[in-house]
Amino acid sequence: MFENISIIGCGLIGSSILRALNKKKISKKITVYDKSKEVLSHLRQENLSINISNDIRVSVKDADVVIIATPLSSYKEILLSIKDHFKKGSILTDTGSAKKEINKIIENLNLKDVSWIASHPIAGTENSGPKAGYAELFENRWCIISPSPKAKKEEIEKIEIFWKKIGSKVKIMSFEEHDHILSLTSHLPHAIAFNIVRTTINDEDKFKKEIIQYSAGGLRDFTRIAASDPLMWRDIFIDNSENILKALDNFVINLEELKKAIIDKNGDKLIKLFSATKEVRKEIIEAGQDTKKPNFGREKN
Amino acid sequence: MFENISIIGCGLIGSSILRALNKKKISKKITVYDKSKEVLSHLRQENLSINISNDIRVSVKDADVVIIATPLSSYKEILLSIKDHFKKGSILTDTGSAKKEINKIIENLNLKDVSWIASHPIAGTENSGPKAGYAELFENRWCIISPSPKAKKEEIEKIEIFWKKIGSKVKIMSFEEHDHILSLTSHLPHAIAFNIVRTTINDEDKFKKEIIQYSAGGLRDFTRIAASDPLMWRDIFIDNSENILKALDNFVINLEELKKAIIDKNGDKLIKLFSATKEVRKEIIEAGQDTKKPNFGREKN
Repeated sequence: MFENISIIGCGLIGSSILRALNKKKISKKITVYDKSKEVLSHLRQENLSINISNDIRVSVKDADVVIIATPLSSYKEILLSIKDHFKKGSILTDTGSAKKEINKIIENLNLKDVSWIASHPIAGTENSGPKAGYAELFENRWCIISPSPKAKKEEIEKIEIFWKKIGSKVKIMSFEEHDHILSLTSHLPHAIAFNIVRTTINDEDKFKKEIIQYSAGGLRDFTRIAASDPLMWRDIFIDNSENILKALDNFVINLEELKKAIIDKNGDKLIKLFSATKEVRKEIIEAGQDTKKPNFGREKN
Repeated sequence: MFENISIIGCGLIGSSILRALNKKKISKKITVYDKSKEVLSHLRQENLSINISNDIRVSVKDADVVIIATPLSSYKEILLSIKDHFKKGSILTDTGSAKKEINKIIENLNLKDVSWIASHPIAGTENSGPKAGYAELFENRWCIISPSPKAKKEEIEKIEIFWKKIGSKVKIMSFEEHDHILSLTSHLPHAIAFNIVRTTINDEDKFKKEIIQYSAGGLRDFTRIAASDPLMWRDIFIDNSENILKALDNFVINLEELKKAIIDKNGDKLIKLFSATKEVRKEIIEAGQDTKKPNFGREKN
């Protein structure tokens, strides 16, 4: 696979990759760069077998693969810094949650002798930063790979093997397909979660304390993903705005239909709507995408 | 407390109450009634120390407390059947998720020598029916008690003790406060969960399989409560429609503001919105309302 790996950005995802690589001992040399001194000092304490670089250009120069694991808004600056320092024949990948806009930036750079093969590990938690990461984060989770049209088959295979070695299942799709599917499976749910928490819990409400107290009736399920990293989500909403706005419009159309059924006290319509969504849960569990234990099994923890 | 308890309706909640009462041996006699023969036959197999009654009128006649644990839409018919058969001085309670409309029905019946003290245990799972219930369901969960103005202090205390004995924490509030708070903590989140699952996963979408496959990016969190009992939720939306419609309107106003920030690519605004909701998660966990383990701790189950 890759003898020499460079990771730029060591938050939840970047630090989890390097811990997984370390644990499984699957490369000779790992070089990491992060602009935050705090992050680097945290990694130094952990006694991992890695090289920490203070110069982003030096951090990539011998790498067979460079992995950008920063928020999307940092990519442009990073790429401008490293574009003339890649090793010839190396692969550029990332871990970002939106692809189309980033791909435009990279296409415009016209990198020579570097293959751009995007990655998106669908793994993470509501926590962020290197302290929240762990080596097993990718185990049995999907990673979506979107290669640029110029990428060679054997290079794509290398990236596939890379993710599989740290535990992921791999699927290849185009930039456009990725951004459409993720707008529904991840970006819309985050938008809605942020919005419902904002609507129900705010300092101006005289019942704020009670609303938190009795949130086990449903609301608490939404607070988890509404606690995700604000900076990361700002970038996703801006980068994949077209798909997200379309999904939000469809959501509002359906919500108006639900409101009408409530106003009309149309019981049959409500039962029909709710029965369909009940079926979906079974499919999610059958696809191995969630635990079948009631309440996510959290009560017994 | 109560020597003689009658439970009408033995689904998830009713069956859990009778299992908890059995386990803790806190009453001399428990009589249960359910209109479904399947439910009763399931209970018979379980070898619980209960009396199963085939006549709803007989099931309540000696009871010190009658607990209605059916969907809200059944209350009227049940109450008309039993209204002349209550023991003098008994207490009527329930487990329903909305209070104001039910209270009107009961006030209109003008019950004599029966105290109406509503209960709402905020406990449950996405599953329904007697097989889904268990004796520990109420442990460390809130139960909200809403007494009618005529209820005596010592009667309210009896109901408080009843719920505490089967593990609940108890809070007293008015019918109106209950319906307002629950519309935000439970009813709005369910409406939104039903709506997002309907918007993202449907048979007409050519990417349906992929959307289920990659739902771990956020969507799967919503599918849990969107799998709740359709009949029960139909009744809640119709009974508490006024509060729920108001909450939905506020939700849409906030959603329009979020959409505008996305359209304008207003990064500062997005960060501000998302940072506020991140803080809320901490408060939910500090209030003991959810696990602090990432991903609800479900991966390690």
